[in-house]
Amino acid sequence: MVFFYPSGIGVKAKIAVNGYGTIGKRVTDAINSQPDMEVVGATKTRPTFEAKLANLRGVPLYAAAKEFVSRFEDAGLEIQGTLDDLLPQADLIIDCTPKTAGYKETYQKAGVKAIWQGGEKHDLTGVSFNSMANYNDCYGAQFVRVVSCNTTGLLRTLYPLYTEYGIDNVLAVMIRRSADPWDTQRGPINAIEPVLKVPSHHGPDVQSVVPDINIQTTAVKVPTTIMHMHSVVAELNKKVSSDDVIDLWKATPRIIFVWGSDGIRSTAQIMEYAKDLCRERGDLFEIAVWEDGVHVVGKKLYYYQAIHQESDVIPENVDCIRAMLELEEDKLKSMEMTDKYMGVC
Amino acid sequence: MVFFYPSGIGVKAKIAVNGYGTIGKRVTDAINSQPDMEVVGATKTRPTFEAKLANLRGVPLYAAAKEFVSRFEDAGLEIQGTLDDLLPQADLIIDCTPKTAGYKETYQKAGVKAIWQGGEKHDLTGVSFNSMANYNDCYGAQFVRVVSCNTTGLLRTLYPLYTEYGIDNVLAVMIRRSADPWDTQRGPINAIEPVLKVPSHHGPDVQSVVPDINIQTTAVKVPTTIMHMHSVVAELNKKVSSDDVIDLWKATPRIIFVWGSDGIRSTAQIMEYAKDLCRERGDLFEIAVWEDGVHVVGKKLYYYQAIHQESDVIPENVDCIRAMLELEEDKLKSMEMTDKYMGVC
Amino acid sequence: MVFFYPSGIGVKAKIAVNGYGTIGKRVTDAINSQPDMEVVGATKTRPTFEAKLANLRGVPLYAAAKEFVSRFEDAGLEIQGTLDDLLPQADLIIDCTPKTAGYKETYQKAGVKAIWQGGEKHDLTGVSFNSMANYNDCYGAQFVRVVSCNTTGLLRTLYPLYTEYGIDNVLAVMIRRSADPWDTQRGPINAIEPVLKVPSHHGPDVQSVVPDINIQTTAVKVPTTIMHMHSVVAELNKKVSSDDVIDLWKATPRIIFVWGSDGIRSTAQIMEYAKDLCRERGDLFEIAVWEDGVHVVGKKLYYYQAIHQESDVIPENVDCIRAMLELEEDKLKSMEMTDKYMGVC
Amino acid sequence: MVFFYPSGIGVKAKIAVNGYGTIGKRVTDAINSQPDMEVVGATKTRPTFEAKLANLRGVPLYAAAKEFVSRFEDAGLEIQGTLDDLLPQADLIIDCTPKTAGYKETYQKAGVKAIWQGGEKHDLTGVSFNSMANYNDCYGAQFVRVVSCNTTGLLRTLYPLYTEYGIDNVLAVMIRRSADPWDTQRGPINAIEPVLKVPSHHGPDVQSVVPDINIQTTAVKVPTTIMHMHSVVAELNKKVSSDDVIDLWKATPRIIFVWGSDGIRSTAQIMEYAKDLCRERGDLFEIAVWEDGVHVVGKKLYYYQAIHQESDVIPENVDCIRAMLELEEDKLKSMEMTDKYMGVC
Repeated sequence: MVFFYPSGIGVKAKIAVNGYGTIGKRVTDAINSQPDMEVVGATKTRPTFEAKLANLRGVPLYAAAKEFVSRFEDAGLEIQGTLDDLLPQADLIIDCTPKTAGYKETYQKAGVKAIWQGGEKHDLTGVSFNSMANYNDCYGAQFVRVVSCNTTGLLRTLYPLYTEYGIDNVLAVMIRRSADPWDTQRGPINAIEPVLKVPSHHGPDVQSVVPDINIQTTAVKVPTTIMHMHSVVAELNKKVSSDDVIDLWKATPRIIFVWGSDGIRSTAQIMEYAKDLCRERGDLFEIAVWEDGVHVVGKKLYYYQAIHQESDVIPENVDCIRAMLELEEDKLKSMEMTDKYMGVC
Repeated sequence: MVFFYPSGIGVKAKIAVNGYGTIGKRVTDAINSQPDMEVVGATKTRPTFEAKLANLRGVPLYAAAKEFVSRFEDAGLEIQGTLDDLLPQADLIIDCTPKTAGYKETYQKAGVKAIWQGGEKHDLTGVSFNSMANYNDCYGAQFVRVVSCNTTGLLRTLYPLYTEYGIDNVLAVMIRRSADPWDTQRGPINAIEPVLKVPSHHGPDVQSVVPDINIQTTAVKVPTTIMHMHSVVAELNKKVSSDDVIDLWKATPRIIFVWGSDGIRSTAQIMEYAKDLCRERGDLFEIAVWEDGVHVVGKKLYYYQAIHQESDVIPENVDCIRAMLELEEDKLKSMEMTDKYMGVC
Repeated sequence: MVFFYPSGIGVKAKIAVNGYGTIGKRVTDAINSQPDMEVVGATKTRPTFEAKLANLRGVPLYAAAKEFVSRFEDAGLEIQGTLDDLLPQADLIIDCTPKTAGYKETYQKAGVKAIWQGGEKHDLTGVSFNSMANYNDCYGAQFVRVVSCNTTGLLRTLYPLYTEYGIDNVLAVMIRRSADPWDTQRGPINAIEPVLKVPSHHGPDVQSVVPDINIQTTAVKVPTTIMHMHSVVAELNKKVSSDDVIDLWKATPRIIFVWGSDGIRSTAQIMEYAKDLCRERGDLFEIAVWEDGVHVVGKKLYYYQAIHQESDVIPENVDCIRAMLELEEDKLKSMEMTDKYMGVC
Repeated sequence: MVFFYPSGIGVKAKIAVNGYGTIGKRVTDAINSQPDMEVVGATKTRPTFEAKLANLRGVPLYAAAKEFVSRFEDAGLEIQGTLDDLLPQADLIIDCTPKTAGYKETYQKAGVKAIWQGGEKHDLTGVSFNSMANYNDCYGAQFVRVVSCNTTGLLRTLYPLYTEYGIDNVLAVMIRRSADPWDTQRGPINAIEPVLKVPSHHGPDVQSVVPDINIQTTAVKVPTTIMHMHSVVAELNKKVSSDDVIDLWKATPRIIFVWGSDGIRSTAQIMEYAKDLCRERGDLFEIAVWEDGVHVVGKKLYYYQAIHQESDVIPENVDCIRAMLELEEDKLKSMEMTDKYMGVC
C-alpha cells in the first residue's frame, strides 16, 4: 500500500484503537491531528460517558466483543459493529486495553500490526519503543510495545546524557501518583506505599530500550492523582556543568523547563501551567524538568522531573505508527511532524 | 460612545482586568472570545508563570502598582506600565484581586465602571449579579458584584424552580473543596472542617440577588481541590415530578446533566468529562446536576450539583459587562451570545 | 447458667469474636476490660499483623474455617483450632466479618447467640440495637444487629431530642470518610462522591431502632480517612434554646463537646484530642458535637457532629451482650459499667 | 546537686517544657514516666484544648510570656505564672517552640541548661545529639540540639552500618509528609513538591552528628499526614548479605521491622500496628524498616524506612537530658532505661 505521507499521494494510514479510555481517547485525537494517519474506529466494553463522547466527536465506535453489544443497545448508543468488524479496516491497531487482556492472537489472525502500551511486558513483543532512543529498531516491525509513562520520562532525559556524556550509573526514585484523576476507586487516601521489590521494574524497563544504561530504581506510591515525580541522580562519565546539561536538554524535543522561582513549586502548578498552554484536556506531552532543581556536584547530576502519566506517551505512539508502517524513515522528522500537529514544544 | 455590538458599527468595549490569576485569566479569554468586547490589559503583582503566559498570549501586561515594577524588570518581563496607565484605556475593569484589596476609590477617581467577584461583600457595590436572576437590575450600573461560584451555582438551579413552582424553603449543605488545584499552601490534607457559623453566609448571599428565596445553608470543607458539591433539599410550593424538574432545568442555560449510570460517579469523572468536551483549560462553565440524583418525595426535591469553582462565574462576568455597558438589553440574548462564543452548553 | 455479674458469684460470660479486624480487635479489648465478660477466642482468615498481635496480647486465635488453617501453619503462627472449635465454648459470638459472609446458620446450629454489625441489614436479625434507645427490646434476644457507626451517631443525639422535645422532622447530610485509616486500597484520592440513592439508607436505619423519628438523609463520600461528619437540621416540636439542647446532651452518656474556639476546628483536631485523652488506639467512643456549632433558629436546631467510625459502636456491643445474655436489666446501669471500664466520658 | 538516679538518693531532675504542643506534650509524658526526672511545668501561648489537657493531666501550666496571661484568664484557665516563674525551678528546659522563637538568651540569664529540637540550626548550640551516635559528646553540655525526626531516623539505621561495615556513600530520598495530622492549615492536598535546593539539608544534618558519613539527600513533600518515608541506598565498604544487615539492626535499639507479607504495605498499616501496640497516642518511637524491602545488590544496600515525625525524637530527648545533667554515663544504660519506662521495643 502507498501511504499518503511523505509522497503526498496515496491514502492516510488507517489506525484502529482498542480501548477508548484514558490513553485511547488521547491517541485517537493525536492521530486525527496528523496529516498522514487517521482513526477508523475505536472500541469500548461499556456505554460510558467516554463512549458517548466518541460518538459525539465522530469517532466510529465498536463494541470490543460480541458479548458487549447488548450493553450499547440497552443504553441506546449507536455502534458500528464489533472489534472483528473493525480489524479488517485497519493497517495497525493500538491496544489500550488493561494489561490483563490478551489480544495478540486476534491481531495476528487478522494480519494487523499492533502497538501495546507500557503496562504490558517487553516479552509480549520483544521490542520496546522510545522515539528518540530506538525509532529505527522498530522500523517495519509487526508488534511493538511503547514503554510506560515513567520509562518514557526516564528515557527522554537520560538518553541525551547517555549519548553526549556517557552514564556511569543512575539511581532514580519514582514518587508515583496512585491513581489517575478520574479513577476514584483506588487509594491510598493518606499513606505512602513503597514498592518492596527492589530495585523496581523501571530500571530493567529502561534497559529494554537502551540496554547499556546502568540504572537502578526504587518506587513509592503517594496519595496524589496528577503527576509522577522522579528524583534522579546520574553519575556521568564526563565532568559537565548544570548549564551544559540544561543546554543539552533545551536542544532535545519533548522536554520543557519550569522554575520554582516562577511559582511552579509542585506538580499542581505544572498542571495549571499546562492548562494555560491550552493543550487539549490540559495535557502535558513533554517531560517537565525544574531548571532550578538541576544541580551538578562532582560528576553527579541531580534533577527532578514530573511526568503527566496520561499523556507523555501519546507522541511516542504516533511516532511508533510511522516507524512500524514505514511512513517516515527519519526519527527526527517524524517527531517534528508529530509535535507540530499536536502542539508539543 | 457607540459600541460595536449590536449595531455592527462602532468599537468593541474596552475591558481591563485587575489581577491576572485564576479568575482573571479565564475572564480575559472569555472576553476576547466575544465579538463586542476585548481586554486592553491585565495586571499582576509578581512575574509568575501566569504573567509570562499573559505576554506569550498577547495580553498587554501591567504592574498592579508602581512598587511592583522592579519585580518585573528584575525578571526581565516586559510590562506596558502600571494600573494607572491602564485605567484610562478601559470602559470597565474586572477586579479579580484577593478580597483584601480595596481599589474602589481608585476606580471611582478614574471614572471607570467596575465588577468585583464574590469574595467581596454585597455592601461594596449594593448590587449583586446573576445573569438569569437579575440582569436588568444591573443594567447601566456603575459598580456591581458578581456573586461567588457557590452562590452562582445555587441561583442557576433555584431561580427557575422559584419562578416556575415557588419555593417554600431550601436547605443546602455545601461540601466545599478546600483549595484550588494550583493552591498547594492550603490544607487540610486529611480532615473535614465545618463552618461553625450557622446558617452559613451562602443563604444570605443568594438573597442578595433574589431576596424572596427562603434558604438556609451549612458548609463543610473537605480535602479535595476539584469541585464544590451541594446537597440540596428544596420544598416546592407545587407538587411536581422529578421529570418535570429535569425538563425545566434542561430548558435552562448553563445547567448540564450527568449520570452515575454513565460512570460519572463523582466530581472526578465530571472533570474528566469536561476535559473531553475540550473546553479551554478543561473548565466546566455549567453547573453539573446528577440526573439520577434528582428525586422528589412529596413536595421535597432532593438533588446534588457540582460547581467548578474556577470557571462557573466566567460567563456571568461577560453578561455583567454587557448589562453595565448597556451593550444588550435582553438577558437571554446576552447569555446566548456569551455561551455561543465560549462554547458553553 | 449463672453469670458472674451482678450477683458476684458464678462465671464471666464467654464471648467469641468472629473476625479480629478493625471492629473485632476493639470489641475484644472492650469486653476484656469488663468484670462480667471475657473473650474466649477470636478468628482470622489470614496470618496478618493483627493475627500476630492477637497472639501477643493473649487472645486465643482460631482460623475462621478449615481451609485457612494451612495459611497460619505456613506463617508459623499458632492457632487453637477453627471456628467450629471455638463456638461450643461461647455463650455469644460477635460477628465482625465483612457483610458478605453468612454465618447465621452456623451460629444457629451451634446454639450460640450472635451480634452482627451495622453493615448487615435489619432483616437478618429483625431487631437492631442502640443502648439508649432500645436496650430493653433486645433483652434476652437470640440474634441482634448493632446499627452502624453513622446510625449510632444519629441516635445518640436524636433520641434525647425525640424523648424530651419531640421531633417534627430531621434532615441529616452525612459527609462520609471514604476509607478507614489502614485501608489503602480504597479511594477516592481527590473527589467528592454523592450517594445517588436519595434519601440514603441512614434514615430508614435510624427508624429500624426508633420507627417514629421522621428523618431523611443524604450522603457524600469525601477523601479523608479519619471521621464521618454529620450536618444535621432537626425541626423540634418545642421551642428551645441552644443552651437547653446543650444541657440535655451534657446529661446524656457518650456525647462529648468540642469547641472551635479551643482550636478544634475539624475532625483532625478531634482525633488529636482523642489521642491526648489516652484512650486505647486513640479511639473516640463518644460522638463529638461542636458546642459553638449548635444553633437554634426558630424551631430548627442546627448542629454538626463527628463520628469515629472505628470505635463508636464498641460500647454498644458491650451493652448489647449484657442485654442479650440478661446480665443487667437496667440500660443505664449497663452503660455506666461499660463506660467506666472502657474509660468513656 | 545530687540527683535521684542512679544512686537511689537525692531528688529527681527538674525539667521545664517550653511549648506544650506536638513534641512538648509527648516529651512531658515521657519524662514523667521515668524514675529520675519529672516535669515541673510547661508553657503555652494560648488556652487551646492542649492547654486544658495539661491542666487535666496535672501538668503545671504557665503562660509563655506576660502578654499571654490575659488570654488564659479570659478563657478561665488556671495558670501557675509565666516562663519567668518556671525557669528558676528547672535544672533543664526543653524548648519545643516553633523555630522562629529565640529564647537562648533567656535561658542563659536564668542559668538553666536547654535542649532544642531539630527545627533549629546546629549553630545555635554547636552540638547536635543522637543517643546511639554521640551521647558522650553531649555529656555535661549546657546547650544541645536534638536533631530532627528525619535525621534521627537516618542515624538510627546508618550509624550501626557505619561502625560495623563502613559506608562509602549514601543517597537517601526523603518522601516527606506535608503536615502533622492535626495541622489542617497546610497543604498540598493533591501535589508532589520537590525541595529544589539539592542536595537537601538532611545530609549535612546527619554530618552535624557523625561528620564522616558521606551522605547526600533529596526531598519531596507529598500530601499525607502520617509518616515520612525514606528510600535509602547505602554503598557499604564491606560485602554483606541482607540477613547480616537485618541481624545487625535487630540488635540495635529503636528499630523495628515490619513486613509487607503481613499486610503492612504502607505507612497507614504501620500506624495501625502502632495503635495496636497500645502505646500512648498510638505513637511509634522506633524507626520502622520493611524487612522484605531490605535488599543488597553488590555492595549497595537498599532499604525503606518510615518515620513517625511526632514521636521518634522523644526517647532521644530523654537520653539527652541524662547526658546533659550527668545522670548516667553509659549511653546504652540510659537508652535501656528510657525505653523500658516508655515501652519502646
